[in-house]
Formats: sequence, C-alpha cells, structure tokens
Amino acid sequence: MAKKNGLDEYRVPFFDEDGKSKFSLAGVDPSAKPFSTGSKDSDRERLAEIGAALDAQQERLHAQRVQRVLLVLQGMDTSGKDGTIRAVFHEVDPLGLRIVPFKAPTLNELAHDFLWRVHSQAPAAGELTIFNRSHYEDVLVPYVLGTLSKDERDRRFGHIREFERMLADHGTTIIKCMLHISKDEQRERLQARIDDPTKHWKFDVSDLDARKLWDKYQAAYEDALAATSTEYAPWHVVPANSKTHRNVMIGELLLRSFESLKLEFPPAKESLKGVIVE
Amino acid sequence: MAKKNGLDEYRVPFFDEDGKSKFSLAGVDPSAKPFSTGSKDSDRERLAEIGAALDAQQERLHAQRVQRVLLVLQGMDTSGKDGTIRAVFHEVDPLGLRIVPFKAPTLNELAHDFLWRVHSQAPAAGELTIFNRSHYEDVLVPYVLGTLSKDERDRRFGHIREFERMLADHGTTIIKCMLHISKDEQRERLQARIDDPTKHWKFDVSDLDARKLWDKYQAAYEDALAATSTEYAPWHVVPANSKTHRNVMIGELLLRSFESLKLEFPPAKESLKGVIVE
Repeated sequence: MAKKNGLDEYRVPFFDEDGKSKFSLAGVDPSAKPFSTGSKDSDRERLAEIGAALDAQQERLHAQRVQRVLLVLQGMDTSGKDGTIRAVFHEVDPLGLRIVPFKAPTLNELAHDFLWRVHSQAPAAGELTIFNRSHYEDVLVPYVLGTLSKDERDRRFGHIREFERMLADHGTTIIKCMLHISKDEQRERLQARIDDPTKHWKFDVSDLDARKLWDKYQAAYEDALAATSTEYAPWHVVPANSKTHRNVMIGELLLRSFESLKLEFPPAKESLKGVIVE
Repeated sequence: MAKKNGLDEYRVPFFDEDGKSKFSLAGVDPSAKPFSTGSKDSDRERLAEIGAALDAQQERLHAQRVQRVLLVLQGMDTSGKDGTIRAVFHEVDPLGLRIVPFKAPTLNELAHDFLWRVHSQAPAAGELTIFNRSHYEDVLVPYVLGTLSKDERDRRFGHIREFERMLADHGTTIIKCMLHISKDEQRERLQARIDDPTKHWKFDVSDLDARKLWDKYQAAYEDALAATSTEYAPWHVVPANSKTHRNVMIGELLLRSFESLKLEFPPAKESLKGVIVE
C-alpha cells in the first residue's frame, strides 16, 4: 500500500496460502481523503451522482436476475456503518435494497455453526444486499473476549474463505469494507452521543468496554483482513474519520464493481412486439 | 363515502358481523385528487415534507422499539405499488424500512396455511414494514381463477380479521391501501410498457390474462375490502390514476397514523449522565 491514489491502494493484499499473510492498519491514515473531490460541497455533488448511477445499476441487476451483489460493512463502534447506508443509498430505490443487520447471536443462532445465519441471508439473483456487520463479528468479538482460541479462529478464517468462494462461484460480487477511524475520532463521536440525551437510546455504558479493548480489536481486524482478503472477496480499508470521504469512497468502490459487471437490460421480448392492449 | 374531502371519506366502512357489509368501488373516482395541493409542483414539495416527517417518525419508532407499523399495498397490475414505495419512502432511512414483496406462493408456502408466510414477515417492535402485495392475494387470485370456493374464501376473510386483530393487539398499527385505477388507465400503462422494449422484463404476455378478468377482480376486491376493513386494520381506497396524488395521499395517511402514536425518544439514561469518554 505504498501509493494511496487509487482504490487498489486501499485493497488489503490477497491471502497467500503458502506465505505468511500480514497486514497493518498503521499504514492507513484514517484522516486521509484520497477520494475527496476537493470540498465537502463537491463531494456531496459527487455522492449524488454516484447514488443516481447506483440506482440505475441496481435496476439492471434486478431486471436481469442473474448476478448478485453483496456489500459487507465492518468497523468499530461509531465508525459509520449506519451513516454509510443512509448516505450512499439515499438515491437507490428502496425496493432494490435489502439490508441485513447482524446483532449478537440469539440462542438459536448459537446452536448452529457461525455461518448458518449468514448463509440464509445471502443475496438472491438480482439482489443488492448489505450486511451491516457480518460473519466477521464471529472471528473478532469472541477472539478478543477470549472465548475463541487462535486455532479455532484460524479454522474459521478458512471456513469464511471457502464460504465466500462458493458465493462468488454462484455469481455473487462481494465487496468488503472496513471503516477505519482513529481512537481519538471514536472518543469524540462517543462523547457527542453521551452529551445528547436524545441519542442515549443508541447505547449503553457497557459499550465503553469495547473501547477499552481498542488495541486488541485493531490487531484482530488486522488478522482477519489479512486472512480473508481474496481475489473473489477483497477487503478495502476505508479512511473514515471524514464522513463525507467515507461515503464517496464506498460509493466509488461499489459503483466500479457494478460497472465491471456490464449489466444490461434483458432483450425485448418478441412475444410482446406489436401487442395492442385492449 | 358521501363527502370526499378527508381521509375518513376514503376509508371503507368497517365490517359489521351482524349486517351485510357491502362496498362498491364505483363510488370512488380513480381520477379524483382530493389530497392534491393544487399543482404537481406543490404536490412534490408536500411529498418531500411528508417524506422528511416520516423519516423523523421512523427514527422514534426504532428508538422506542415498542410499536410496529405495517403498510399493506394492494392493487391491480400497474396500479403503482412499486412507484409508491419509491416515491413516498425516498427520504426515509433505508435502515428503518423493511419491504416484503409477496409473489406467487412457492410449493413450500403452498404446503402451509395461507397466513404462514405472511406471519413470519410481520413487523417486529420498532419496525416499519411494507407488504408489496400480501395475504389479500390469496383471497383474490384463487377466487377469481375459480380454485377457491366462495365458502372457503369467506372463511379466509374471518381468518384474516382475527390474524390482523392479533397483530394489532400486540402493538401493530395496520394501514391498508387499495390503489384504485381505471381500466383505461391500466390500458395506457400496459401499452406504454409494451412500447418500451427496456421495460419488457417487467412482464409477460400472460399478464394480459388478468386484465381480461378486470370486472371479476374489481368485484373480488369489493368483497375483500368490505369483509376486512376493521377499526384495528382499516382499508383506504386511494384514487391512483394520478401518480402524484396517489403518493401524497398514501404519505398523508401514513403520517397521520404515525402522529397518532405520539412517538417520543426514550428518556435519557441516568447511567450516562456526566460520563467522560477516555
């Protein structure tokens, strides 16, 4: 990740079965704005353009009903997963979007393997699905909290790679974004929520416990990104201290993925040619 | 439905267990625009206001996680169910919206009672859910096609009333809209789709068969509306030849239902008072 001027520069190097895949978040400045167009105003204009383009792409995806697109959003508390969904998909037809939030697993979900609840929510042909948190929580949280051993976690990385490979083999384009904020930025955002009583419903004092484990979570993310960034399901690290930049970058990433699918409307139906409705 | 100047005037009279509930669609002009503000431009402004207000209401609904809101959209082909969702909910946070399309039942769905697939999609506490078609298809389509007897259908009406009563008893606000267009309007809309090859994917020649049964479907709708409009789950007939009017009226209806819930953000948490994030 030497030069930081293209989306590829923010892509986590692909996992190498033989080598020792490593990745450091220290190489990515969470305050960087490589995809900013210069000012907040012009960024917002660009975002509106991206939104309209995504809407048009989604309609073709839906019309064709062949491909599937999955966007996975991960990041520390307050990193902006909800805000991204709201801002980037504002222009996209709500009919064309399925958003799946993954919370702490229920008893029934825990009674199955960790991919069980995720698999059932995978996008169907023609669907654009967003995972708001995902199966990656299950290699981050229990590992940091010490209830999942390193060996077991590493096996899960393997399960994830094979699961995502299968989705990709069946026509799913997978885009995974880690929303990268600094520890200082998180402090400011948490404090702002605490200082606004109407935002208290959004969290609990116990949410501050995860912040105390910040370094462990960052290291766990580095392991997870290194082990599961693949050609068929790459991870991108998104500098996210600036909300506007975060939105534009994720929008650009998604739009380029859509464009690479070269989606077209299905051909006209001969059977409808010249039909006059009575 | 004598005077047509308020939402109540478009509400289908409540089902009366003892009387003979009847309802005629002939009394509602599909070209009427009772909720228009005067011009298309001002209607669009009003719709943007409604959208922003719905967004604010939805956030409170979500914050409180007590109430549930269910919007049911029904209508003939091309009556504008998809267009309504797109236009009315444009401003609403996609995170706060769950849209459930009901298509022809699958083999597995047919192997259960007709409410089985519907019940599993009912809104959870804090959710705003839209049914794009619904359990009403199962008292309309098979009855018109002759595969469901009148007796069996009337029993289903009873099942629907009791099912919706139970949802309402558990805190669900149910709003049901029949998008009412004229047969001429449908002809124009179908013809426009046929004349635009990029829209062919939206339908099949066999879709025209339903149009041939127009009168039977209208009568079936009248029976269904009369039998299932209740105090806890009223039907409204929405004049829908004008798309802008349709959007404004459904928006107003939904907004007034939300307002009657008097939703507030949950109170501030004492445990967060004065907390400084480190």
